[in-house]
Amino acid sequence: MADRKFISIDGMGGDNAPLIVVEGLERFAQRRADLHFLLHGDEAQLAPLMAKAPTAAARTTIRHTDKSIAMDAKPADAVRRGKGSSMWNAIEAVKNGEAIAAVSAGNTGALMGQAMFILKKAEGVERPALAANWPTRTGVCAMLDLGADIAASAEQLVEFAIMGQAYARVVNGVANPRVALLNIGSEELKGHESIREAARLIRGSNLQMDFRGYIEADKIGYGTIDVVVADGFTGNVALKTAEGIARMMSDMIKDALKSGPIAMLGALLVMPGLKKMREKMDPRKVNGAVFLGLNGVVVKSHGGTDSIGFEQAISVAAGMGESHFRTEVEDNLKRLVASTSAVAPVAEPSEQTAK
Amino acid sequence: MADRKFISIDGMGGDNAPLIVVEGLERFAQRRADLHFLLHGDEAQLAPLMAKAPTAAARTTIRHTDKSIAMDAKPADAVRRGKGSSMWNAIEAVKNGEAIAAVSAGNTGALMGQAMFILKKAEGVERPALAANWPTRTGVCAMLDLGADIAASAEQLVEFAIMGQAYARVVNGVANPRVALLNIGSEELKGHESIREAARLIRGSNLQMDFRGYIEADKIGYGTIDVVVADGFTGNVALKTAEGIARMMSDMIKDALKSGPIAMLGALLVMPGLKKMREKMDPRKVNGAVFLGLNGVVVKSHGGTDSIGFEQAISVAAGMGESHFRTEVEDNLKRLVASTSAVAPVAEPSEQTAK
Repeated sequence: MADRKFISIDGMGGDNAPLIVVEGLERFAQRRADLHFLLHGDEAQLAPLMAKAPTAAARTTIRHTDKSIAMDAKPADAVRRGKGSSMWNAIEAVKNGEAIAAVSAGNTGALMGQAMFILKKAEGVERPALAANWPTRTGVCAMLDLGADIAASAEQLVEFAIMGQAYARVVNGVANPRVALLNIGSEELKGHESIREAARLIRGSNLQMDFRGYIEADKIGYGTIDVVVADGFTGNVALKTAEGIARMMSDMIKDALKSGPIAMLGALLVMPGLKKMREKMDPRKVNGAVFLGLNGVVVKSHGGTDSIGFEQAISVAAGMGESHFRTEVEDNLKRLVASTSAVAPVAEPSEQTAK
Repeated sequence: MADRKFISIDGMGGDNAPLIVVEGLERFAQRRADLHFLLHGDEAQLAPLMAKAPTAAARTTIRHTDKSIAMDAKPADAVRRGKGSSMWNAIEAVKNGEAIAAVSAGNTGALMGQAMFILKKAEGVERPALAANWPTRTGVCAMLDLGADIAASAEQLVEFAIMGQAYARVVNGVANPRVALLNIGSEELKGHESIREAARLIRGSNLQMDFRGYIEADKIGYGTIDVVVADGFTGNVALKTAEGIARMMSDMIKDALKSGPIAMLGALLVMPGLKKMREKMDPRKVNGAVFLGLNGVVVKSHGGTDSIGFEQAISVAAGMGESHFRTEVEDNLKRLVASTSAVAPVAEPSEQTAK
């Protein structure tokens, strides 16, 4: 394989696999002529589909396996009994250095469990996090943790901030990302102690980070912050809330535009303007959540996405796989360790003097 | 005052007080000819405004005070030094039995602090909660806690469920509310232990509650649940996220409908259909969050609302004040205590037998 770069793809994960996986792959291959692909799964199903995806087929190696992970598999079972499945093999190709990143639309917990087991946590990272983009008025904002775990200590929130900053740089191309901690704003009741402690830690460190303190969830859309940090439970609730409201409003708009012949005529006239909004709020355009903090890139696509969404997830994987993300994070973690340990030597002598 | 029912109103709280307070009061008075009002605040400012609100004026008593609570007041200061302010007096009228409910658009923390101090917690309630309605496809869904506190134990979540059930009955008129705990859905990682324990407690009790287990935030809009229960931090983040996304999408629709002469013509044609959506998602229509679990009804209006929103907040206060909410909650709390203590006597003899 020498100098050819491969993306490793779980052909069997997701509600509409393998069809939308192959269609998404074909779309992506048409955009990026320089990348190659490893496609893991049942060759009997994949080969006929690939025959209809000529651009991708020319650069795709099918890696056959009969085994795949069910969408309702439990994470522990997926780790214990998942070896040799299409998901497992997709991740293992990253570990072996055959691929720069893996993508799957399969079960989140299973993917997370297998990725953690196979790739292990990166050095210095205590807790990996799931990151993805969130649409704003002016572009996108990276958000993490979206549910890799349910809780996070102050130190782990600082880690998330560091990883989120690197993600915003390499995936979103923001040179100096503005980072904030998600919090609530009722005066003295300002959020959990872990959040306030994380703010103190970041301010007291020599991290090169444009840290902007707290952000309330209703302000994320303003586009004034590039990275929003939360524990996995809170981040997941916020993400799901946003998805739910956006879907409800989109459905209501559709109903309104079809509510009668006059409205339908009007709809034709307003459509070009509304298209911009629909594109911005299109969940497919922000599909592809990345597990940050592992020794290798694994991207989780929404299980119910279509080929456009899966194409986007491959695109995120390629962007992360080709980037210097890990160096970014490593450098910042070193800076954090340095600033933490720098405090101790200063404090010790003065304490001794006090005695 | 005999048999006349009064609503007690903080005339000076909110970004646009006292103007929108009086305008909202006038709107409400036109709807409800049977209620009377105590209006607390600076008479020099209130009297000229009331002169332009004849319907309300005929049934309003202005209670003068020079003192008001600043929008950025700290809760502790509001309690320590707030006595005699328009907010304080509005709440005190409820304590004294002069009014059936109090309304303020002032600082949330200050209102919460004063309400707790003046009215005290209702018997059997460990932690009051802030509840409000959330728009769904089919109507509204009650949600609590929206930020009265930041955390909640399993027992407190059960309390919230009981209070939310009563709220859905008396404010939303749902005979048998379907209650669920807000949770995340990543398989084995299903949420905090407190949430799972709360589910066990409710299932193991003899509460007369249509308990539906967990709900993910993206499903709230489906309208299949009438009461969503969360700790105050999570509830507040969900609420703010929903507000932010709804506002962003509304702004984008507005921009789209004004994007050129053809779009503007189309906008005229689609407007009647879109109006339904705008009304449904109009935050003013769901304005008025109630502090549940105190000895008396206190309603918090959004600080930045207009007269329509403030009218709605008074309406919520009237509905709660006239209802049998407290009896509902008391009965259910007794049932909970009975079912909890019912477990012990059964367990004890069998343990003794084991000895």
